[in-house]
Amino acid sequence: MRILKPIILALALLLFFNVSSQTDEKVLKEIYKQSLTNGKSYEWLNYLSNQIGGRLSGSLNAEKAVAYTKEELDKLGLDKVWLQPVMVPKWVRGFKEYAFIESKKGKTSTTAVNICALGGSVATPALGLKAHVVEVQNFEELKTLGKENIEGKIVFYNRPMQPDLINTFEAYGGCVNQRYKGAVEAAKYGALGVIVRSMNLRLDDFPHTGSMTYGDMPVSKRIPSAAISTNDADLLSTMLKLDKSIKFYFKQNCKQLKDVLSYNVIGQITGSEFPDEYMIVGGHLDSWDLGDGSHDDGAGVVQSMDVLRLLKECGIKPKRSIRVVLFMNEENGLRGGRKYAEEAKQKGENHVFALESDAGGFTPRGFSFDCNDASFDQVLSWKPLFKPYLIHYFEKGGSGADVGPLKTKTNVLAGLRPDSQRYFDHHHASNDTFDAVNKRELELGAATMTALVYLFDKYGVNPIASENKIKE
Amino acid sequence: MRILKPIILALALLLFFNVSSQTDEKVLKEIYKQSLTNGKSYEWLNYLSNQIGGRLSGSLNAEKAVAYTKEELDKLGLDKVWLQPVMVPKWVRGFKEYAFIESKKGKTSTTAVNICALGGSVATPALGLKAHVVEVQNFEELKTLGKENIEGKIVFYNRPMQPDLINTFEAYGGCVNQRYKGAVEAAKYGALGVIVRSMNLRLDDFPHTGSMTYGDMPVSKRIPSAAISTNDADLLSTMLKLDKSIKFYFKQNCKQLKDVLSYNVIGQITGSEFPDEYMIVGGHLDSWDLGDGSHDDGAGVVQSMDVLRLLKECGIKPKRSIRVVLFMNEENGLRGGRKYAEEAKQKGENHVFALESDAGGFTPRGFSFDCNDASFDQVLSWKPLFKPYLIHYFEKGGSGADVGPLKTKTNVLAGLRPDSQRYFDHHHASNDTFDAVNKRELELGAATMTALVYLFDKYGVNPIASENKIKE
Repeated sequence: MRILKPIILALALLLFFNVSSQTDEKVLKEIYKQSLTNGKSYEWLNYLSNQIGGRLSGSLNAEKAVAYTKEELDKLGLDKVWLQPVMVPKWVRGFKEYAFIESKKGKTSTTAVNICALGGSVATPALGLKAHVVEVQNFEELKTLGKENIEGKIVFYNRPMQPDLINTFEAYGGCVNQRYKGAVEAAKYGALGVIVRSMNLRLDDFPHTGSMTYGDMPVSKRIPSAAISTNDADLLSTMLKLDKSIKFYFKQNCKQLKDVLSYNVIGQITGSEFPDEYMIVGGHLDSWDLGDGSHDDGAGVVQSMDVLRLLKECGIKPKRSIRVVLFMNEENGLRGGRKYAEEAKQKGENHVFALESDAGGFTPRGFSFDCNDASFDQVLSWKPLFKPYLIHYFEKGGSGADVGPLKTKTNVLAGLRPDSQRYFDHHHASNDTFDAVNKRELELGAATMTALVYLFDKYGVNPIASENKIKE
Repeated sequence: MRILKPIILALALLLFFNVSSQTDEKVLKEIYKQSLTNGKSYEWLNYLSNQIGGRLSGSLNAEKAVAYTKEELDKLGLDKVWLQPVMVPKWVRGFKEYAFIESKKGKTSTTAVNICALGGSVATPALGLKAHVVEVQNFEELKTLGKENIEGKIVFYNRPMQPDLINTFEAYGGCVNQRYKGAVEAAKYGALGVIVRSMNLRLDDFPHTGSMTYGDMPVSKRIPSAAISTNDADLLSTMLKLDKSIKFYFKQNCKQLKDVLSYNVIGQITGSEFPDEYMIVGGHLDSWDLGDGSHDDGAGVVQSMDVLRLLKECGIKPKRSIRVVLFMNEENGLRGGRKYAEEAKQKGENHVFALESDAGGFTPRGFSFDCNDASFDQVLSWKPLFKPYLIHYFEKGGSGADVGPLKTKTNVLAGLRPDSQRYFDHHHASNDTFDAVNKRELELGAATMTALVYLFDKYGVNPIASENKIKE
């Protein structure tokens, strides 16, 4: 009889897992159905994008977005909704930037080009800055050229995003140091200003802004830096090849003001069994100012809000406390993400799971996970549940900038991974607008996030893997 | 020593497959790189869409497209390029359709709405058609309502695409009989005309055309039918609920002319080892006339053309004869697809494989296969090769309308399956235009098709599965 016991146990377990998995199938079906037939994400995004617009940290629009999303969360009947104060940097663009290429071959001629100041940049002198241009692909080239070739000139960083990388975020990662540290590196060699090719895989006329740093460079030494559209980067490069003596002129009057008070917006459904285990889902409420921030990261904001609403709509009562966190100031400071993690630590709140959506509102493909092997095995056991929704990408990797500071040895951080092909067509540019978001794609993302939250809430995080996986 | 032989054999096989698989990895990498850095598909599509435009069968534009694509194929240095004559129907839209809803509550008022004639429809009387409207969801409702409620009225089919289906083609399949057979069904009960809700999951103002049939109904009995935009379908439905006495007016002067001569465009690389085994890749050159047919099916045309070019660029010399076939008249007759299969049969050409791209130029997700189990197993063994390109969807299912007639018991038919979420936003409507196609997504599709063609050419079709699969 001895041998029977483990067999019976095994059979019982098998039965349990089968039933459980069937229920999960039904729950996921209901979640997707609700999102696609009765979702709120698109309506919220419409308001955020078209009634409010770009939400740069410290701006009036950012304040409006705080008020609006809090009000909408209040309507959902969550257990708690509150604002978490956080001081944020306030940088303002000022008047629209202006730039041209001046050529003196034959008659003097100027060709206007599309630029925008990089976030955090200083202004040019009031009358603008005009100088010869030296084109480089990277910082090593600066070193090779040396002060004698750079001093008194404008450095033009023109390394394009690598088109044969399938993941466009990888291509972005391979270029973004030009934007982020281009000014501080060029200033070492006496450059007067910096022009950076936009981080965009497409050839078009939109300049793409984004954050940059001066490190600990004294204010008096800082040089202005701007992004140029990909079409105009190609033009400038071609003109330089034909004539080294051309000059570049640009004018911008952006400035950094004093920090101002802003807020993370937080809503919570309190857990029925383990209220002290926190699972969060979030995106960032601030955006750049050129477009209306629909993909970056209006999409993540409204999807995260809808996760909590969808749980309620589907009659799911979470065992753990689920929070939506709309982070302020991801773009140029990460103050919101840091503040949230800091307070969570102070209060000893146990954050077992955090999911971020900050890669656009495109068709979701899956998630990347920052977690230990046991948790990752658990995730992989859920893969079949996602198959009907064409969610196939489950890989180890980064999660997101705002949830990153919450990392512990045992918790799970995750990032939604939508299709990335179109993302950098819009990222940080004036065409990051509502019309570029497809309703169904956005809703599929919200459903996919809700499904993952549901499963982690149900089965718990980082248990002994074998007990909590669903058998395939 | 006897036992050693199979072990050595097994080891040799393992080594072979590993080497082989590594080579395949390299080849696929090169194919994707070529397509993303040096692809021609987008440039060709730009010409087809913006220099030629909509290519309805029998139109001047369709002729131009035949000439242009033949000329471009001629430049590729293929072994053979030719035109295959085929007679096609010629239906013309005439002037822009016009429609309004007339309400007599209070003062008489009219509200203009967006409609377009369905392909193949007859005209309204010259002064238009005005009648009361009866809204139905399906043919069963017609039966229930009966002649007494339908005769002398316009039937308005308003069954929407089901939004909770993940595959939008499935949602299309659930609705399209309203468009295709709506007129012939309604005429049985004495309806004067038919208005059909556009096959579109989005609410917008674009009416979507598409083919319809009168079956064997005598010409004199045929009633005009048109599609109405989804926004206006909702409007009409709401107005009907408020007031059954409203009337609908529409005017269109489309007509069916005599069949005209047109062509399939074909190019071939002749196989080095098995020239009598044919593998084809294709899309359809004709399109509807409202937009420029960029997604349907300009994308499939240029991707198919690029498959042969990419094979050459990557130095792949196929063992089998690879043909690109640009089919004429998929939209309203399928004459090209039928003609091609008919001639192939007459000539006894052994078509072992056919791949169609006719589901839009969006990010490719995989393929569906119409084939036997051995071939499908073979395909599944290649799945790991596609993983780096996020190609994950390999399912049994349909292939495509144009290659369908080539089906035999042993060959493999396949259809490219791009992300389907946005497809019906554009399908058969005036917003099926070049700007809705993303260059990278289009190029990823071309590369994915090329990779599958390369693998089937290398390993052969429908062999004893175990010999030809790659070990995972």
